[in-house]
Amino acid sequence: MINQHYLSMLGNKNIIRVLSEYATERAKEIGYENVFDFTLGNPSVPTPESFNNAAIRFLQTMKSRDLHGYSPSLGLPGVKEKVAASLNRRFGMDYTAGHIFPTSGCAGAIAHALRAVTVPGEDVLVPAPFFTEYTPYINDTGAHIKVVPARFEDFQVNFEAMEEMMNTATAAVLINSPNNPSGIAYSEDTLIRLSELLTRKSEEYGHTIFLISDEPYREISFDNRTIPYPAKYYDHTLTCYSFSKALSIPGERIGYVAVNPRCEMGDKLVAVMGQISRGIGHNCPTSLIQLAMAEAVDDTAELSIYETNMNLLYDTFVRLGYRTVRPGGTFYIMPKALEDDAVAFCQKALKYDLIFVPCDAFGAPGYFRVAYCVDTEKVERALPAIERFTKEVYGK
Amino acid sequence: MINQHYLSMLGNKNIIRVLSEYATERAKEIGYENVFDFTLGNPSVPTPESFNNAAIRFLQTMKSRDLHGYSPSLGLPGVKEKVAASLNRRFGMDYTAGHIFPTSGCAGAIAHALRAVTVPGEDVLVPAPFFTEYTPYINDTGAHIKVVPARFEDFQVNFEAMEEMMNTATAAVLINSPNNPSGIAYSEDTLIRLSELLTRKSEEYGHTIFLISDEPYREISFDNRTIPYPAKYYDHTLTCYSFSKALSIPGERIGYVAVNPRCEMGDKLVAVMGQISRGIGHNCPTSLIQLAMAEAVDDTAELSIYETNMNLLYDTFVRLGYRTVRPGGTFYIMPKALEDDAVAFCQKALKYDLIFVPCDAFGAPGYFRVAYCVDTEKVERALPAIERFTKEVYGK
Repeated sequence: MINQHYLSMLGNKNIIRVLSEYATERAKEIGYENVFDFTLGNPSVPTPESFNNAAIRFLQTMKSRDLHGYSPSLGLPGVKEKVAASLNRRFGMDYTAGHIFPTSGCAGAIAHALRAVTVPGEDVLVPAPFFTEYTPYINDTGAHIKVVPARFEDFQVNFEAMEEMMNTATAAVLINSPNNPSGIAYSEDTLIRLSELLTRKSEEYGHTIFLISDEPYREISFDNRTIPYPAKYYDHTLTCYSFSKALSIPGERIGYVAVNPRCEMGDKLVAVMGQISRGIGHNCPTSLIQLAMAEAVDDTAELSIYETNMNLLYDTFVRLGYRTVRPGGTFYIMPKALEDDAVAFCQKALKYDLIFVPCDAFGAPGYFRVAYCVDTEKVERALPAIERFTKEVYGK
Repeated sequence: MINQHYLSMLGNKNIIRVLSEYATERAKEIGYENVFDFTLGNPSVPTPESFNNAAIRFLQTMKSRDLHGYSPSLGLPGVKEKVAASLNRRFGMDYTAGHIFPTSGCAGAIAHALRAVTVPGEDVLVPAPFFTEYTPYINDTGAHIKVVPARFEDFQVNFEAMEEMMNTATAAVLINSPNNPSGIAYSEDTLIRLSELLTRKSEEYGHTIFLISDEPYREISFDNRTIPYPAKYYDHTLTCYSFSKALSIPGERIGYVAVNPRCEMGDKLVAVMGQISRGIGHNCPTSLIQLAMAEAVDDTAELSIYETNMNLLYDTFVRLGYRTVRPGGTFYIMPKALEDDAVAFCQKALKYDLIFVPCDAFGAPGYFRVAYCVDTEKVERALPAIERFTKEVYGK
């Protein structure tokens, strides 16, 4: 018989996808250029040549079996070395190849990290706002997602609420900085407080609480600031990364889990994740993409467009009287809607062909997400539409 | 805390891997060419040009976002259409794109198929001999593997034993034809009897028992025979496929689940598998590899070497008095060892630098697997070593 749990999930259509499909339909009516589609986090800037050229070179020159043969289930050693060296150089860490577990994107990374440090029935705490997919990511392992209410003034962590929600069932905390949907990067102060809390509670409960840090937007930082690297502040950190955004290759499904060498059983966790792969059918990511990624590991696409777009939108939203926190990175901004019901707000914006995503499912009811990984020219043309919508509907 | 279940799995080293590692070490001592390493099922023939050239062409000509952007979670529509058309043409089926779910290899395909049609606690029956990884594949879903003892005379299905093991907890049967490790292809007669049994028992229990058919070796068939296509014989079949063997690209992790359109809820199962992906971190396979695969969907590598190798080995084993069933496909043969303990037999063969795999873990104790996806020249040089080993150790 068909599994009823998964069957029942079919009804719950993802709001982002529904709105994105609406935008695609609307584009057929009035032309793609006239729909201000801010729904999807699909990188818009070209992939760096270093990645494409490496892939072409390997396809043209490598022996078939060396290129296309099975990768070891824990990943290609040379690739892992390059990833470790890059992280060490950039963040002052001391990873070796043995601490790097290549995965099919961040979804694959989080699937392994969660299973490695939780058992069914335990809790994983997630500070709001949070990426909506964390709910199935966590709950389908058998653990339970517990959403820590947002700290609305700056979207750093609401530590009081987090501490109250902790108990002996707390196995891990899953963070995402810089953050989808808010664009906020956690400050050093936040990471220090988080580390102190996790250390204290681990001692109190007699087991290590792990930090799973999901950071696919790490390379997109604004105002010349460096995004603090969470594993630097807490030993028991599993860093989940995807090259989707940095290299504009979300379809190529390549990322990794980096295990902090000072982590509990830090020398065993990559092997544990290899065992997890056998049950969830992951095995290893594509060999060709592993190899090409390693050649572009320190490279990025031209990411500055996202800061340009952020500034245009941030200045406009602030000027029009929206309450919003200035993003530290990503290609998202999350202003407060001009009425309590963000769904109704986004519905009204549709009449101006502005497609925003209400953030109720992200743990930030009353807010909406604007994904600005689109051409700057389109953002510029959207600004008068945002102004007209705001004035005509809300009289601002 | 680290998940103890996965941690405990670290102790159980895969026998194939242990022997393969031994072969690699031994090659360092006496030279790669002098070790007759028959352990691994890693295809040895080159990938067809059609695949590599398509990948290069896409990298050189496609727009970044079109090539490297997110694939829909249910797969690229054009790719799915080509896969469906190929299956329909070759096996007289009537799949549409909506019945094809692209996956990261067969492991990914089986992970989705199992979760779609079982719930934790139910049974999945697997006829021996079987691929050892089925144990974690099945058990880590929460369902239970139940191994149906082999029919040793021809390695078709032992239907009496299978029927005895069935009960209301039976959710699915997982088959693998042509088979790893035996090389045997199920006959039409076997598939008809299997279909009759599953139909009868589904009626008796009041729920559909699904057939999950794992067939990555389908394109490697011998003696000019066509391997019967299981979904043709039983409506409720989920066909799991990988291009690893046909195109010699195991590292590129590309395959699919094909849902028989006449299957229970056949129009919904692909969407159900999309929901499963969210929990296990699969999302979709790599876009570049999906696209290149579709260009080579009807192509294969030069697979005839495997039949040449099989004939050399089969004739030698038979001449030396080994009991063995002639393979119908794959690149495996599974003779009976010359003593009851196949582990001891394989241990003794090591002295002749013959690396075989004992089949206890494959549900065929007393037998050993020979993976002949190696150069024919090496097989030819191995034959005298097999003869010497057999005569000197067993006096045959």
